[in-house]
Amino acid sequence: MRALVLTDQGIEYRADYPDPEPGPGEVRIRVLFAGICDTDLQLAAGYMGFRGVPGHEFVGVAEGGPLQGKTVVSEINCACGRCAYCARGWPNHCPHRSVLGILNHDGAFADYICVPQVNLHALPDEIPAELGVFVEPLAAAFEIGGQIDIQPGIRTLVLGDGKLGYLIAQVLRLQGAEVTVLGRHPHKLARFQALGFPTQPAGTDSGELFDVVVDCTGSPTGLAEAVQRVRPRGTVVLKTTTAQSLDWNPAPVVINEITIVGSRCGPFRPAIAALASGQIEVRSLIEQVFPLEQGVQAFTAAARTGAGKILLAMGGSHSTSA
Amino acid sequence: MRALVLTDQGIEYRADYPDPEPGPGEVRIRVLFAGICDTDLQLAAGYMGFRGVPGHEFVGVAEGGPLQGKTVVSEINCACGRCAYCARGWPNHCPHRSVLGILNHDGAFADYICVPQVNLHALPDEIPAELGVFVEPLAAAFEIGGQIDIQPGIRTLVLGDGKLGYLIAQVLRLQGAEVTVLGRHPHKLARFQALGFPTQPAGTDSGELFDVVVDCTGSPTGLAEAVQRVRPRGTVVLKTTTAQSLDWNPAPVVINEITIVGSRCGPFRPAIAALASGQIEVRSLIEQVFPLEQGVQAFTAAARTGAGKILLAMGGSHSTSA
Repeated sequence: MRALVLTDQGIEYRADYPDPEPGPGEVRIRVLFAGICDTDLQLAAGYMGFRGVPGHEFVGVAEGGPLQGKTVVSEINCACGRCAYCARGWPNHCPHRSVLGILNHDGAFADYICVPQVNLHALPDEIPAELGVFVEPLAAAFEIGGQIDIQPGIRTLVLGDGKLGYLIAQVLRLQGAEVTVLGRHPHKLARFQALGFPTQPAGTDSGELFDVVVDCTGSPTGLAEAVQRVRPRGTVVLKTTTAQSLDWNPAPVVINEITIVGSRCGPFRPAIAALASGQIEVRSLIEQVFPLEQGVQAFTAAARTGAGKILLAMGGSHSTSA
Repeated sequence: MRALVLTDQGIEYRADYPDPEPGPGEVRIRVLFAGICDTDLQLAAGYMGFRGVPGHEFVGVAEGGPLQGKTVVSEINCACGRCAYCARGWPNHCPHRSVLGILNHDGAFADYICVPQVNLHALPDEIPAELGVFVEPLAAAFEIGGQIDIQPGIRTLVLGDGKLGYLIAQVLRLQGAEVTVLGRHPHKLARFQALGFPTQPAGTDSGELFDVVVDCTGSPTGLAEAVQRVRPRGTVVLKTTTAQSLDWNPAPVVINEITIVGSRCGPFRPAIAALASGQIEVRSLIEQVFPLEQGVQAFTAAARTGAGKILLAMGGSHSTSA
């Protein structure tokens, strides 16, 4: 089959990658669309040491199992189902897990991917197939509300004007928070303004301190900035993972008794429901759709500063402008 | 009066430092004993940029106010009493605060210190005066239980075998936790073992992951080690503040959805009650008592690796061995 493969030489297109065979409990999915995420760019930069087919935001058609023939999306953590973490309802933290396109499991930048049946969710007809790629990052946005208490009117700052920030800002507002967005890119901040969010350009400091600051800058310095902008006893939600480290003095965390909450993958059900009901705007995030054969160029496009969401279409050539 | 003073040249003894005058709402305290804390050593190394008289763990005799003539201890944050943080019951986070011996207020390494009347607590007769210096760090140990839920049987690791670790381990056990201690100093670990705590020498890794890890190493690398030793979705309590920064990649915090809770000063009442009832052993921590005149040597003694608690006695010369 066709696939993009991450090797020691970087990302490569292969026309003859072996077709994946479903393991026990797995179903083969014919991929329709997949999104390139900042994590994929970090993987290409060495994060997690991943080698193989990346890609974990995708939508496809199930070729077996109870959802055969249906358009589906898939949770990305493949858990053992038997350990203490799985028993606790935390399969995303199963120590034996693989993660689609990130850890010990080929991902979705290919014609086919095999995933555990239990990971699948049918995509409702109300959601156009290409928008299904947003279910996974939108679930990550919903994760925050399961970790911290979003009180009505809580003052939150989304640090970072990227795609994940766009989803998080909308979800937090849906949950009752007051949301301000701080970012570096005027054209991206404009997208938030169009939805009615107050914005601040990066580098400004009004001195305002927030109850909750979400770092989705994708930059190693985001954590330090988030800690500066949260009030004493406030909460920083950390979404950024990078291959680089940070030179940082955590003393303000102690002095101001700040809580930092690491936040990763989230629940698919509320994400699918919010997309289906039209409560979350995602279409404007799509900048361009590349055919799979042009996947290397798609990675280059995704890595540009300020890039929108780049999709890969497995069915053939498409083109969409932002 | 006599005082130790932190200047650009380091810590100095002065026989002729000006006597402090009580401000509005303040009471003058004749200091009996004061303890040198790791924070004092960090201040001398440049932390907080403090200049003046350090010293925030102390016991003395009130020279005015409702507690006149009584032996007292004092909370160290001097708050405005009027701002939103004070109104919320968080005077320790008052943005207008001074902090005794740490921020904009002379401390207790002197014959006299002036402190707000509202900060004072009488020291019960059951507590020998020299042990009153442990109320402040013991309150910091009690702070943890007010920030996170210490469920009975919760598996905690105290990272660091120093004085604060010794107090924290005892308080966590009092609150129902299972406590293991990891440290670098066999003679200090022996002190924990004498109280029945299981210990692990630093550098070993049993692979065991804990529900809660408290970093009281006093080292900038403690945070990274704590994150390594906590289970997914577990909590790291951060007590360490240093003048140095840390080169660190926080990705594991995100991947394992770890919560980091900065923890600073705590409530005096439970600390005084626990000391008065004999539930917390502190006497073995005292290594040596220096007269104030020998304060510079006392700082040197406190800075030795593996040093016990060094006290300053304002009344004259004393000597105690560990």
